[in-house]
Amino acid sequence: MGSPVREFNVAVVGATGVVGTEFFKILGQRQFPLARVRALASERSAGLEVECAGQRIPVETLDENAFAGVDIALFSAGAEVSRHFAPLAARAGALVIDNSSAWRMEDGVPLVVPEVNPKDIPRRAHGIIANPNCCTIPLTVALNAIRDGVGIERVTVATYQSASGAGSALVQELAAQTRSIAAGEDPKSSSYPYQLAYNVVPGGWPMEEGGYNEEEMKLVLETRKILHEPQLRIVATCVRVPVPICHGEAVFLETGRSLSAAEARARWDSAPGIVVQDDPAQQIYPTPVGVAGKDDVYVGRIRNDPSTPNGLAFWLVSDNLRKGAALNAIQIAEEAIRMGAI
Amino acid sequence: MGSPVREFNVAVVGATGVVGTEFFKILGQRQFPLARVRALASERSAGLEVECAGQRIPVETLDENAFAGVDIALFSAGAEVSRHFAPLAARAGALVIDNSSAWRMEDGVPLVVPEVNPKDIPRRAHGIIANPNCCTIPLTVALNAIRDGVGIERVTVATYQSASGAGSALVQELAAQTRSIAAGEDPKSSSYPYQLAYNVVPGGWPMEEGGYNEEEMKLVLETRKILHEPQLRIVATCVRVPVPICHGEAVFLETGRSLSAAEARARWDSAPGIVVQDDPAQQIYPTPVGVAGKDDVYVGRIRNDPSTPNGLAFWLVSDNLRKGAALNAIQIAEEAIRMGAI
Repeated sequence: MGSPVREFNVAVVGATGVVGTEFFKILGQRQFPLARVRALASERSAGLEVECAGQRIPVETLDENAFAGVDIALFSAGAEVSRHFAPLAARAGALVIDNSSAWRMEDGVPLVVPEVNPKDIPRRAHGIIANPNCCTIPLTVALNAIRDGVGIERVTVATYQSASGAGSALVQELAAQTRSIAAGEDPKSSSYPYQLAYNVVPGGWPMEEGGYNEEEMKLVLETRKILHEPQLRIVATCVRVPVPICHGEAVFLETGRSLSAAEARARWDSAPGIVVQDDPAQQIYPTPVGVAGKDDVYVGRIRNDPSTPNGLAFWLVSDNLRKGAALNAIQIAEEAIRMGAI
Repeated sequence: MGSPVREFNVAVVGATGVVGTEFFKILGQRQFPLARVRALASERSAGLEVECAGQRIPVETLDENAFAGVDIALFSAGAEVSRHFAPLAARAGALVIDNSSAWRMEDGVPLVVPEVNPKDIPRRAHGIIANPNCCTIPLTVALNAIRDGVGIERVTVATYQSASGAGSALVQELAAQTRSIAAGEDPKSSSYPYQLAYNVVPGGWPMEEGGYNEEEMKLVLETRKILHEPQLRIVATCVRVPVPICHGEAVFLETGRSLSAAEARARWDSAPGIVVQDDPAQQIYPTPVGVAGKDDVYVGRIRNDPSTPNGLAFWLVSDNLRKGAALNAIQIAEEAIRMGAI
């Protein structure tokens, strides 16, 4: 592919969005084997600069010729942009890692969480690898770490999702509403159907079939694909909460055989990518404020659920911009490099 | 008991708390058959006044002789105060309706939601009637309206509970933290173990057995008692969210026979005390901001849960200070009056 053996030309598409910003931050923090990094965005962002590993990088306008010489293209500019430009980048020789929902459920496109299904990365990585939804990633990390020899029969999830999962507009709207409330004024909503500050909103996503919205169906379908359990019984209610960063999930599991809370805790304790924070008598459990900026999936409130045979209840929190998006995508690239697949 | 036939002397214990304030507001709004209303609180509140039905009422210090001539005593001053003073008020001849957790699970003490188990009010009401937990009340209203001929096999709940459920100190702390965030300063926590603004907290309650906290066990045990289903399989994860008023609940049911979402919706539509707000394609569903100050339990996001036979998922929001506390207590008193039990 004309790339140097040990260093890679990386392009970030959607360079000025909340996840794009996180891509540059993480590439710098992890000392990724970078040759050159490029920032691509729509014309609206022309003239801006971003920062990566201490360097200022001009934002270039995304067009069909932008991918010449690019080894790895990290996309996070929405499904429409990915549908059009990801195949072009792949055809130009780049390994595309796409954070949008455009390609996730496409047959033949791997949907990867490196702790869970690294083997789904092709031996010779090319084309498009999809990065899962920001609630799906931490859930599959947690489920995968305890299912060996036990099995997952059913998963029930209620989410507590932060504003940044919807992009920077909602983060700014939440901040503006917070200032209004502090000033004793009425908070105004513009991009979002409800006031988010001082509120929780069980929706905001487009509806699909059966009364479930797009976000809930992503959690269901992507979890099945990543775990290679196409019949997994799983249901979700997705709720937006007035938090800037980090998604929480209240999870109720039915496992295939009895799994004590202590055994689950021990499995999570030794699993890569998971931190157990679980001493509720001392009021120790993960919260979004505590987990923001962290790489791992944080698990707590682990206890057996006596309302069903083999029931296990727990709570998790994960940084939706890092493990839920940019970090997982970069970890996919790192795994492909480690495998010698690129 | 020396009370007039049609009007009643009412005392509010905990007159200056968030629920106490709501008692006076609702007594005025509902044109309760009031003879005289008295405001009782600890010595800390001596010298204050409260307002009820347009009248200023001086706050009197609660002591053991405070209940002479009181027909109905509405308690919301915490479990300790109720344990000591509720029996004294009952002995002085008052019907005590107690919003604390002190007497709820006591054998022989009725635990009442008027839409659900009005028959648990004794024919000749005396002594103590307990008012349930603020998450339990709306949940039992919703479950009761659909269980006839169907049955409830299992209930899984994740809550989104507002700051006022913990009292005025946490409401003030949330407001102060909101002002700090708006000013770009670090929010400070004092009464609560975590920052609540811009955060969600799966705890804050004392722990009980098996990894469940007090709030989660209240939901389990009180729901069983109110529904007269001592073996009901029910599990909860309780989470505090940065909202001043109204609790949300994501509920997953397993019913005894198949119940379509349409049939559940029809049952809820015709049930007293419930409003259905459910057109998610138009982004219509209940939220705390929309329900604050309302009397009814609001239900939405009603759909079948295909992950289990006879599964039904829904979302509810209820004003925790009104239906979750003061309103339900006053409705108990009204029902006792209507029955001629007092």
